[in-house]
Amino acid sequence: MSNIKKPALKRRRVSSSATDMAAAISQPGSIEINVKGAYIIDHEDDDEGSHGSGSGSSSPSSDHGAADEHSPQHHKRDIRLPNHTAVVSHVAADIGGSLAKVVYFSRENANAESGGRLHFLSFETEKIDDCIEYLRLLQTKYNEVNGVKANKLSVHATGGGAFKFYDRIRERLGVEVQREDEMSCLIKGLDFFITEVPTEVFTFDDTKAEDAVQYQETRSDIYPYLLVNIGSGVSMIKVSGPNEFGRIGGTHLGGGTLWGILSLLTGARSFDDMLAMADKGDNAGVDLLIEDIYGEGKSYEKIGFSDKTIASSFGKVLKRKRQAEKQAEDGNGLSNGDRDSKRLSQGGMDDGLQSNLVGDGRMFKPEDISRSLLYAISNNIGQIAYLQSEKHNLKRIYFGGSFIRGHRQTIHTLSFAINFWSKGTKQAFFLRHEGYLGSVGAFLMGRPVNWGRKGSVDPDGKEETLDWR
Amino acid sequence: MSNIKKPALKRRRVSSSATDMAAAISQPGSIEINVKGAYIIDHEDDDEGSHGSGSGSSSPSSDHGAADEHSPQHHKRDIRLPNHTAVVSHVAADIGGSLAKVVYFSRENANAESGGRLHFLSFETEKIDDCIEYLRLLQTKYNEVNGVKANKLSVHATGGGAFKFYDRIRERLGVEVQREDEMSCLIKGLDFFITEVPTEVFTFDDTKAEDAVQYQETRSDIYPYLLVNIGSGVSMIKVSGPNEFGRIGGTHLGGGTLWGILSLLTGARSFDDMLAMADKGDNAGVDLLIEDIYGEGKSYEKIGFSDKTIASSFGKVLKRKRQAEKQAEDGNGLSNGDRDSKRLSQGGMDDGLQSNLVGDGRMFKPEDISRSLLYAISNNIGQIAYLQSEKHNLKRIYFGGSFIRGHRQTIHTLSFAINFWSKGTKQAFFLRHEGYLGSVGAFLMGRPVNWGRKGSVDPDGKEETLDWR
Repeated sequence: MSNIKKPALKRRRVSSSATDMAAAISQPGSIEINVKGAYIIDHEDDDEGSHGSGSGSSSPSSDHGAADEHSPQHHKRDIRLPNHTAVVSHVAADIGGSLAKVVYFSRENANAESGGRLHFLSFETEKIDDCIEYLRLLQTKYNEVNGVKANKLSVHATGGGAFKFYDRIRERLGVEVQREDEMSCLIKGLDFFITEVPTEVFTFDDTKAEDAVQYQETRSDIYPYLLVNIGSGVSMIKVSGPNEFGRIGGTHLGGGTLWGILSLLTGARSFDDMLAMADKGDNAGVDLLIEDIYGEGKSYEKIGFSDKTIASSFGKVLKRKRQAEKQAEDGNGLSNGDRDSKRLSQGGMDDGLQSNLVGDGRMFKPEDISRSLLYAISNNIGQIAYLQSEKHNLKRIYFGGSFIRGHRQTIHTLSFAINFWSKGTKQAFFLRHEGYLGSVGAFLMGRPVNWGRKGSVDPDGKEETLDWR
Repeated sequence: MSNIKKPALKRRRVSSSATDMAAAISQPGSIEINVKGAYIIDHEDDDEGSHGSGSGSSSPSSDHGAADEHSPQHHKRDIRLPNHTAVVSHVAADIGGSLAKVVYFSRENANAESGGRLHFLSFETEKIDDCIEYLRLLQTKYNEVNGVKANKLSVHATGGGAFKFYDRIRERLGVEVQREDEMSCLIKGLDFFITEVPTEVFTFDDTKAEDAVQYQETRSDIYPYLLVNIGSGVSMIKVSGPNEFGRIGGTHLGGGTLWGILSLLTGARSFDDMLAMADKGDNAGVDLLIEDIYGEGKSYEKIGFSDKTIASSFGKVLKRKRQAEKQAEDGNGLSNGDRDSKRLSQGGMDDGLQSNLVGDGRMFKPEDISRSLLYAISNNIGQIAYLQSEKHNLKRIYFGGSFIRGHRQTIHTLSFAINFWSKGTKQAFFLRHEGYLGSVGAFLMGRPVNWGRKGSVDPDGKEETLDWR
C-alpha cells in the first residue's frame, strides 16, 4: 500500500514557562489543554532523544503489541504539546460504527516542564472490550503514579458508542463517562489541527510527481468550510464558526460499504489488506469503460469523455461472465457449461489473500475488484461533497475520518474529484490525523467531571506527580 | 417482483383523415411520424379487437418467444399511433452498455387508414447478434410486403453501440445505418412521451396506498427539467428547450454496478431475478443502522436520525463475520475456526437462486444483499439528482433508463429521495417506457437516408403496401 509519505520534519524546541502554563487554563470549560507550539512527532524519530527515559509511544501494557491482529493500532504520529505541563486526568474515546479511536496524554519525561504528548490509537468497535481494557490499564498506571490524592481518571466519550457502551465503560472502570456531542467534537478537533499543528493539513496533486503533497501553514481564518467525515458512513458538516455548524448531508456509501462488500468478494481480512490489493489492481477488469461501449478509440467527445472514463462501476462483470459461459457452452471449456459457470460465478471469492488462485477460469481478480470499488466509493463521496459545497457556497473542503488512512489512491481520487467537478475553484484538504478529529475534540473539550471543585488541570504546574508514566 | 400496476386504460378511438396524414410530414427532417392521438396499449388488451387479423404485438419470427432466456424482451406496452398511416421505412435501435433497445412501427391492420403502432423490445448488448438478426427478420418481412419498388428499410441507431457495432450492422443488413446523437435522442424521446402520450408519465407516493401512482396529463410547458437516465451508468441532462440541453453530471454507480456486484454475490441470473430477490429481503441484515451504532432506541435525534436510518450500506457485514468467527473459535461451531470462517466468508454466494441454501452458518441472504444494494444505488442516484437539480435550479426531475423497469421499490426510493432532500419542493417523474427514451427519439428523428429524393414517408398515404405485416 502506498501511503502518503511523511514530510521531512523540522523539530521545534519550545520552552515552557509559567505564563504559558497559565494559558492552559485561560478558557475553563473550553480548552484546558495548552496546545501552544504543538507539533507532530513521527515515532521513527523517537530515538532522537526529545524526551526522557519513558518512551512517548509505549503502551501501558506490553500485551498490546502492534503486530497482534487483535491489538489496537497505534497511529505513529504523536503530537507533542511542549507547553502543557499540568496533570491531565482524562482520556478521550470516539467510538464509531467500525472503529473506536482513543487519545490520551502523557508527560514527555520526568520533568513536568518539558510538557507532554498526545497518543493516538484505534480499536475495532467489534472489540470494544479490548478498548475498555486498554483504558483500564491507563487508569491503573495513572493511579499508581498520581496516588489516591489525585483526581480520578475520567473518560470523555463521543460517537454512537458513547451511548451504546456507556454503562459498560462506567462499570468496568468505575469512573464517570462524560459524553460529548459528536459534531462538536469533530469540529473542535479539526479546528485544533488546522490552527495549531504545523504539517498536519495538506493538499494533494498527483500531477506534481515529487511535490504532490503540499503541507499547509497553520491558519486562524478558517471559516466557513465543509467537513466531510468518512467513517463507516459519511457525514458532511458545514462549519461557519467554532460553535456554528450543522450536518447538511452525507451518504451511507462509505468505508463500511467498501469494507463489507470487499470482505465478501475478496476474502481480505483487514481494511489495509484491501487497500494493498487496490494498489495492485486494474479497475478495467470489472468496470465498463466508455471504450467498451463506444468501441476503442471512439470516445464520445461531445460530452468530454475519454476512452478510459468509467461508464459503470462493475459494469463489465456480467459481460465477462456471459462470455465465459458461452465459451464453456461452445465446448471450449474443460468442464460442462453448468459446472464451469458455477466455478466462474465464484471467481475471486476465495477466503484469504490468495491472489494466485484467481485469474483465467476464475475471471475476476480481487485486486481489480478492490480497485474498482475503492474508486467508486471515493469518487462518489467526492462528487457529493462538491455538490454540497456548491449548494452551500463553500470553497474549502476538509476530508477526515478513518476511511482515508493516508492512502494515496483514496486521497488522489477525492482530491481529483473536487478539482474536476469544481474546475479548480475548490480545494480539498487532508489531515495526517484524519481519523482522530472526534477523539481529539473530545479530549480538548475534556472538562473534568469535578471541574470547579478541584481542577484536573493544575494551574501551578508544581505537582510533581506524572500521569501514567 | 412488485411492479407498478398499469392503470385502467380508457381506449380511445381516433379516426384518421387526409389532413391528419398531412401532419405526418409537416416537419420534414424533424418528426416525420404522425404522433397525434398516440396512446398506450397493454398487450393483455389485444383481444379487444382494436386491430385486424395480424396481432399488433407479434414478432416477425416465432423463434423469438418471450419465454426463452436468450430472446428479446418485449415491452408489453405498444403505443398506438392512430393517425400515422404512411409507410415507415426505418427502425431504430439504442445500443447501450448493457441493453439494446429497439423500436419499430407496424400497420395496425390491413387498412392503412387505421394507423399503426410502435413496438418496443430489448436485447442484451452482449447478444447484439441476436438483435441484428431480429432487425434482419424485420427487413425480410418489410421487403416481402413492400416489394422492390419501396425504399430500403434503414436503421437509425444511437448509444455507444451505434459506433461500436456500426460496421457489423451495415454488413449484415446491407443497408445504411444512420447514427443519431445520443442526448438528442433521449430528449426527443422524452419530449414525445411527456407531450403526446397519455398515462405515460407518473408520479409515485408510497404513503398513498391505493393512489401511489398518479398519471400525468400530457403537457406542452415542459421546460426546464432534469433528465436522469439510468442505464449501466447514469447521465444527468439539463434540458431548457427542444434543442437546448447539456450533460451536467452523472455517476458511474448505476444499473451495471448493481447487476455486476449482485451477480457476483448472489448468483442471480438476470436483473429481474435480482429485483425479485430484493423484494423479499431486509437490508438490516447487512446494513449498519443508526441503532447498531447508538444502541437500540437511542437515536441521534440532534441530527434527525431515526433508529432505522442506514448509517452504512453493507456496514454490518464485517461485524457479523467476526462474530461468527468468534463463535467458531469459542467452540460453538461444528467445524474448526479456520474451516468455518472460510465457509462463512462465502456465505450467500452460491450460484443460482438457491435461497434455501443460505442462512444460519452461511450468514448472508442473497435477498438482504440485493435489497441493500438496490437501495444504496437508488438512493445515491436520488441524492445526486437532487443536488444537481439544486445547482441548476430545476424543479422537475424525470427518471428514465432501463435500470428502473417499473420496479416499485426502485421508484419509491428515487421518489422518496427527491422528496426528502428537497423537502417536497421538487417532483420526481417516471415513465412507463422509461427504457426507450433514446430508441423512440432515434425513431422519431428517423429522417430516411434518402430523404429528399424519395421520402420514406408517403405523403399520399395511398400506397397500399404495408410495412412488414
